[in-house]
Amino acid sequence: MKLYSYFRSSAAYRVRIALNLKNIQHELVTVNLLKSEQQAPDYLDKNPQGLLPALETDDGVLAQSMAILEYLEETHPDTPLLFGDAWQKAHIRNLCYAIACDIHPIDNLRVLKYLSGELGADDATKNSWYRHWVEVGFEKIEQLLDHKNEYCVGDKPSLADVCLVPQVFNAYRFNVDMTAYPKIAAIYERCNTLDAFIDAAPQNQPDAA
Amino acid sequence: MKLYSYFRSSAAYRVRIALNLKNIQHELVTVNLLKSEQQAPDYLDKNPQGLLPALETDDGVLAQSMAILEYLEETHPDTPLLFGDAWQKAHIRNLCYAIACDIHPIDNLRVLKYLSGELGADDATKNSWYRHWVEVGFEKIEQLLDHKNEYCVGDKPSLADVCLVPQVFNAYRFNVDMTAYPKIAAIYERCNTLDAFIDAAPQNQPDAA
Repeated sequence: MKLYSYFRSSAAYRVRIALNLKNIQHELVTVNLLKSEQQAPDYLDKNPQGLLPALETDDGVLAQSMAILEYLEETHPDTPLLFGDAWQKAHIRNLCYAIACDIHPIDNLRVLKYLSGELGADDATKNSWYRHWVEVGFEKIEQLLDHKNEYCVGDKPSLADVCLVPQVFNAYRFNVDMTAYPKIAAIYERCNTLDAFIDAAPQNQPDAA
Repeated sequence: MKLYSYFRSSAAYRVRIALNLKNIQHELVTVNLLKSEQQAPDYLDKNPQGLLPALETDDGVLAQSMAILEYLEETHPDTPLLFGDAWQKAHIRNLCYAIACDIHPIDNLRVLKYLSGELGADDATKNSWYRHWVEVGFEKIEQLLDHKNEYCVGDKPSLADVCLVPQVFNAYRFNVDMTAYPKIAAIYERCNTLDAFIDAAPQNQPDAA
């Protein structure tokens, strides 16, 4: 497998963590979002969606990090990241989408670019925008977490942690006050003691700048 | 089961279609987003995320339409909406997320409200914003669709159609030129000949205004 990744892409970061947790051998190919390399013809040939990440498999190229995560779960069931009964899996996915649908897409680089380009927003306005959607989202996620758990759900990492950690990483970058979300902050610290999360972190990528 | 729904909520519309396709008996409870009823204490007691839809089951209340759709798939496998091998399921989910992550969240009512409130955007700016994200998204989805298929994937509805139809409904509301996306437009028309889609449509809801 080949993962097309950019060190700071939150969605690529998710897939990097899952590949590590599942011990799946893969090659990393870096694509520079700031240089718009995801819009280059040879990349678009592989992934017409023109976004990161993309996973090249024997079956073809798959885009959309959440689809990739579910695909890895189906094809590599060892070290499951969706576990428990249907209700618990639903709870894990609920936490995933509270990030992957309700926070991340609104704060994505391309949206921030549109804000500054088409709407003429200055940096302060963009930063407020960023923090607003993280704070609204984290406030709700914090309520959904059980303080007795070491991770988002139970005592081992799930897809919820895979989605949460990259979002918290970005929240720190944008100076979100994480003391308001002690359960989220504790899970972030705990995950970052594990090699799978450490090795997937932006600062540990070959294209880190 | 009880579905908390607002007639124009695109995410609730998805769940209404899936419940109909799977013939799952349920009660519909309407929550008026324009009156911010999703922020009322008794609704927040049920769904701390304060968004629509929510599905009340014997196990508890589940929010996030994509988590609800996956839960219905696991608990009601008859009339599967995720079918085929792992690769085909990945393709179905890829199309779902191209809508549920890449279009819908950015064009959600709460984002449009933030644009007009905090950023002082006028209606023309908001409408351009709305159309921009739909057009960028639909252009890519159009390329991912096979013109030989009657539906998004193969000859029967999948979760991809469940996500696509509400987004197209909204695109028409915002005057997106759908002739640019003939495959998407044809799938929309075809789906809307099926009772499951017709009965779930906003104009056929008890709270339609």
